[in-house]
Amino acid sequence: MIVVMKPQASEQSIHAITKYIKDNGLQVHLSQGEEVTIIGIVGDKSRLSTENLIIFKDVDRIVPVTESYKLASRTFHPESTTVKVGNTAIGPGSLTIMAGPCAVETQEQLLCIAKAVKASGATILRGGAYKPRTSPYSFQGLEEEGLRYMQEAKALTGLSTICEVVSLEAIEGAVKYVDMIQIGARNMQNFILLKEAGQSGLPVLLKRGLCATVDEWLNAAEYIIAEGNPNVVLCERGIRTFETATRNTLDLSAVPVLRSKTHLPVIVDPSHSTGSYKYVAPMAKAAVACDADGLMIEVHNDPAHALSDGPQSLTFEKFEKLTGELRPFCQLVKRSF
Amino acid sequence: MIVVMKPQASEQSIHAITKYIKDNGLQVHLSQGEEVTIIGIVGDKSRLSTENLIIFKDVDRIVPVTESYKLASRTFHPESTTVKVGNTAIGPGSLTIMAGPCAVETQEQLLCIAKAVKASGATILRGGAYKPRTSPYSFQGLEEEGLRYMQEAKALTGLSTICEVVSLEAIEGAVKYVDMIQIGARNMQNFILLKEAGQSGLPVLLKRGLCATVDEWLNAAEYIIAEGNPNVVLCERGIRTFETATRNTLDLSAVPVLRSKTHLPVIVDPSHSTGSYKYVAPMAKAAVACDADGLMIEVHNDPAHALSDGPQSLTFEKFEKLTGELRPFCQLVKRSF
Amino acid sequence: MIVVMKPQASEQSIHAITKYIKDNGLQVHLSQGEEVTIIGIVGDKSRLSTENLIIFKDVDRIVPVTESYKLASRTFHPESTTVKVGNTAIGPGSLTIMAGPCAVETQEQLLCIAKAVKASGATILRGGAYKPRTSPYSFQGLEEEGLRYMQEAKALTGLSTICEVVSLEAIEGAVKYVDMIQIGARNMQNFILLKEAGQSGLPVLLKRGLCATVDEWLNAAEYIIAEGNPNVVLCERGIRTFETATRNTLDLSAVPVLRSKTHLPVIVDPSHSTGSYKYVAPMAKAAVACDADGLMIEVHNDPAHALSDGPQSLTFEKFEKLTGELRPFCQLVKRSF
Amino acid sequence: MIVVMKPQASEQSIHAITKYIKDNGLQVHLSQGEEVTIIGIVGDKSRLSTENLIIFKDVDRIVPVTESYKLASRTFHPESTTVKVGNTAIGPGSLTIMAGPCAVETQEQLLCIAKAVKASGATILRGGAYKPRTSPYSFQGLEEEGLRYMQEAKALTGLSTICEVVSLEAIEGAVKYVDMIQIGARNMQNFILLKEAGQSGLPVLLKRGLCATVDEWLNAAEYIIAEGNPNVVLCERGIRTFETATRNTLDLSAVPVLRSKTHLPVIVDPSHSTGSYKYVAPMAKAAVACDADGLMIEVHNDPAHALSDGPQSLTFEKFEKLTGELRPFCQLVKRSF
Repeated sequence: MIVVMKPQASEQSIHAITKYIKDNGLQVHLSQGEEVTIIGIVGDKSRLSTENLIIFKDVDRIVPVTESYKLASRTFHPESTTVKVGNTAIGPGSLTIMAGPCAVETQEQLLCIAKAVKASGATILRGGAYKPRTSPYSFQGLEEEGLRYMQEAKALTGLSTICEVVSLEAIEGAVKYVDMIQIGARNMQNFILLKEAGQSGLPVLLKRGLCATVDEWLNAAEYIIAEGNPNVVLCERGIRTFETATRNTLDLSAVPVLRSKTHLPVIVDPSHSTGSYKYVAPMAKAAVACDADGLMIEVHNDPAHALSDGPQSLTFEKFEKLTGELRPFCQLVKRSF
Repeated sequence: MIVVMKPQASEQSIHAITKYIKDNGLQVHLSQGEEVTIIGIVGDKSRLSTENLIIFKDVDRIVPVTESYKLASRTFHPESTTVKVGNTAIGPGSLTIMAGPCAVETQEQLLCIAKAVKASGATILRGGAYKPRTSPYSFQGLEEEGLRYMQEAKALTGLSTICEVVSLEAIEGAVKYVDMIQIGARNMQNFILLKEAGQSGLPVLLKRGLCATVDEWLNAAEYIIAEGNPNVVLCERGIRTFETATRNTLDLSAVPVLRSKTHLPVIVDPSHSTGSYKYVAPMAKAAVACDADGLMIEVHNDPAHALSDGPQSLTFEKFEKLTGELRPFCQLVKRSF
Repeated sequence: MIVVMKPQASEQSIHAITKYIKDNGLQVHLSQGEEVTIIGIVGDKSRLSTENLIIFKDVDRIVPVTESYKLASRTFHPESTTVKVGNTAIGPGSLTIMAGPCAVETQEQLLCIAKAVKASGATILRGGAYKPRTSPYSFQGLEEEGLRYMQEAKALTGLSTICEVVSLEAIEGAVKYVDMIQIGARNMQNFILLKEAGQSGLPVLLKRGLCATVDEWLNAAEYIIAEGNPNVVLCERGIRTFETATRNTLDLSAVPVLRSKTHLPVIVDPSHSTGSYKYVAPMAKAAVACDADGLMIEVHNDPAHALSDGPQSLTFEKFEKLTGELRPFCQLVKRSF
Repeated sequence: MIVVMKPQASEQSIHAITKYIKDNGLQVHLSQGEEVTIIGIVGDKSRLSTENLIIFKDVDRIVPVTESYKLASRTFHPESTTVKVGNTAIGPGSLTIMAGPCAVETQEQLLCIAKAVKASGATILRGGAYKPRTSPYSFQGLEEEGLRYMQEAKALTGLSTICEVVSLEAIEGAVKYVDMIQIGARNMQNFILLKEAGQSGLPVLLKRGLCATVDEWLNAAEYIIAEGNPNVVLCERGIRTFETATRNTLDLSAVPVLRSKTHLPVIVDPSHSTGSYKYVAPMAKAAVACDADGLMIEVHNDPAHALSDGPQSLTFEKFEKLTGELRPFCQLVKRSF
């Protein structure tokens, strides 16, 4: 933590701050330049709310010099992490494809989709049983019944399974029926849910919040890991901008940024981010090219009748064509599926 | 709902859509212009996922013509709502000032602040007992103990009280101890929490999400009201933009926008939005001038030692000066406190 | 300028940077903390591109400690500036109201509007003769003919006049006919135009770019002042965000932020920012309440037939009502018009 | 253009609008649903400012049904355009690599870089002679001298050349010395410059504005084409968001979006968008994978001493490695260089 003083800061102001810091059991490194004085703070910063220093007279700004997350940081964990999910794994060397419907609708629908996505190379079946919807009047999911269908689909196809959770109750259901839980974008800073997910024992897919910075996202991951659960996978799914041609703006540069800041695997969701089936294939290829560890893609047997997110769902044919086209890209980045 | 066809749409494409709509029990209004054909859909739209129509051949765009919220809409409830909170009320004619520390720290601290803010005109005491913090290593609040201090402060000062809730457990605590609950920005689309808040019976202050549109915000309010709880107050607290000179960008134009779209009261939080005590006073005055129903302001006996959000907290002196300056503005907008 | 090293930075890396800095004729202040080493750079930074230091091994980040603008900064010019425009002035003590049509359409229209806005308290007549329009097929303005109408309106009413310029040719025209020139949002970083505006000798109203930060805005002002023209007025006119209920998001907190960072006057445009006449009055009052030095408001004799921006234009009646309501707010902030 | 009326719109309000439209020589298609009435407008909309209709009583919203650009639209020009630049071409089948320094610094520097980038596969040399810089105190370019160096580098290497222009004077210089001109992000809506670029006869690279929507970008292209110059290439270079880990947020989904909306070629600049050499390679590969027609990459012989944008410049070694890695990706998308 560095305190940058204003150009005209008085000796008195500088003294007041150094005294405050020392009174709180920390040490001070003073650097007096021609233009400005800089005060470095050394020691265990948890002893004082350093952000408060901005209130002191003649302080220009406070500059943090270390990240607020540790367990998620590559600085303290240089090797890339591989996260096991059921009988598959997400991490270096693999391209993990999670595919399935936005919402679980019926047993037949889910099984039919599960078989199709498996045949095209997916190893994890996605399907929403608890749907967080903007309007209270939209379809909200089959809840535990949906989870049971997921379990059956797994039994019949051998696919691992993932389901979004929105409450402790949903986590308790998920623990019984599926292999991985997902924290959705709208819950990325629902810290209670993050802690409960950390305690669940299941690997967690943590989607980026609609307007979360990379740093906030990694702090959210830290909440989960701090509960003793290191099995966190990050999913870039688009951020909110002024552009309206796509539902959100897919921030693919987050993939290499995360690669440098964290050891956790990173996957990309080209379906929710673009909001249109037309853009899923080019964005999926781009995600593989910039070295994502996996993809989450919405696939539906009949998008026109899907209860949720039909416009961005691929048909079986389109999904099969896409995975076929992805294989040579995978080879170039030394991954396989 | 209107379906706008592409300029070159074929008769066949138009037929396919009208057939699909009619097969789902809805009716069609066809308007064939020189350039484009427009298909209006009439009837109960909950019978089909109209968003899916974008998938059909030759469709250019889907335009919703009615809002997805009803109970929160002024269209169906033209008169402004007044929400009662303890022994005070938020709505036309009043300027309700909620003030207090970001976090409840100790019994003495809270009581001392409660007396001071009451003396300066506040009628509701705010104080966080459950703190959603970006980092898991930051102070997370006193939880139920903090709520008890709120209750005591109420007993001793006569102030009504509000506390943020982050979980069902926190709501159950709040029901016992405080007069109003707050859903914070990060939980604005935590739909489970919204429903539980709706069932709590307490009036709810719903803060705008960090990147929520006005429409999403009103849909979140709809979740609460749909549970039978009409006592919702909206709180503008800044949205996330590229600007870094303030913590967030306070969107004051949301006040008149909400006034035209909803009958619910609207208050403004100049503390969290700007992130700096220096900007609280001018933004508070601006909020009153554009006819907000109230203000939420952070006040602390010793900002430099506050456990949370010290930089934006007003001292007692600054708060007293501000409320004094606000009174003549209130007169101009025909409000009082 | 401070260089923050990574936690594990080697002695070699630190040496490489200090050597590079010294080789470029600058001095170094080294501060070695327990966690990180910080290198302060002292001297004339124009001697090296300090941003390049991020390339060096083990560098974590570069933190500027002084602003890149000087002439616009309040640090070096503590007193607020008053800018003279024709026979009026913008600055402390006054609320300057600039009003008029978005575009000058005809001589009669302009004169009729000029008389009406003068009667209601405006002291500067605005009117666009060169219109930068998103589409090349929209009305682009009357150009020099429009400027002549402005001159005539001035002669007949005594109002001072302002006109947007989009090219050197437009500036040369403006110098002959009007009292102040405006650089529009889309040209805020058209640095050639800024320099030419600086050389024109006329006072300049500099609108904020659609996605400009306060710092970039002040650097744009610096371009004008550096040409020897200190008469710059800043105009907040909304920034682009994800919100679509208003055309842009009016960032009123920029008013107090600018007040602390610069000595230049600041006015607010509630018309372009909101895009709707319905929101002009509340936002104008809010702007006065947070101590803006003036307002720019679009007024039209017949908004429904305006060639540009009709939806946000006030009728004469609405404008008269508004200025009447603004007077008591002005009194509260010790301004008059 | 569709006018959507409010649910309770009176017959009188509907009549007022239909009368107004007919009085302006246009026709009306009325569609009266159960909930709302919709008024379609048929005919030459340039006859009235249709946006003004929002002012009429009981109007809820105005929905445009056709794009405002024609010449840039794929609707009226289904085949993809190839743009010739000197002795190379940008369009289907090729991956055009433009590379070179951010700023032309010296004759030796430019020649040395030109040889290196040519050896690695670039076909167009980029180099800024007129530098639009945020601060007036930063290096502003060598101007015409820089253009002459570009011409010499072309003569010696056979590379085609591109240079940013910021004024009519710069365009007049560019016409004499280089093969293609670039309109930078900050000038994307400098409509005067767009028109002058259109009249120059040279092919134009149009960078996306820092906060421009795809629609505004295509309207800017329309300005150039409307001057009789169809040789426009679009360059995605990142948009401004709240994320600070990269300089801007590269919006790669704009590539497929543009592909569907326009026939013009689209290239990607991974250097300016990310602001860091570390992220250039992954983003370049992603751009190729989602089918961009080319790349613009900054290369410098000595990034640590570059006068501009050193942090994002690739060394010769890194650039050579990158183009080597790009070739197999090109093959997959059926392009070559």
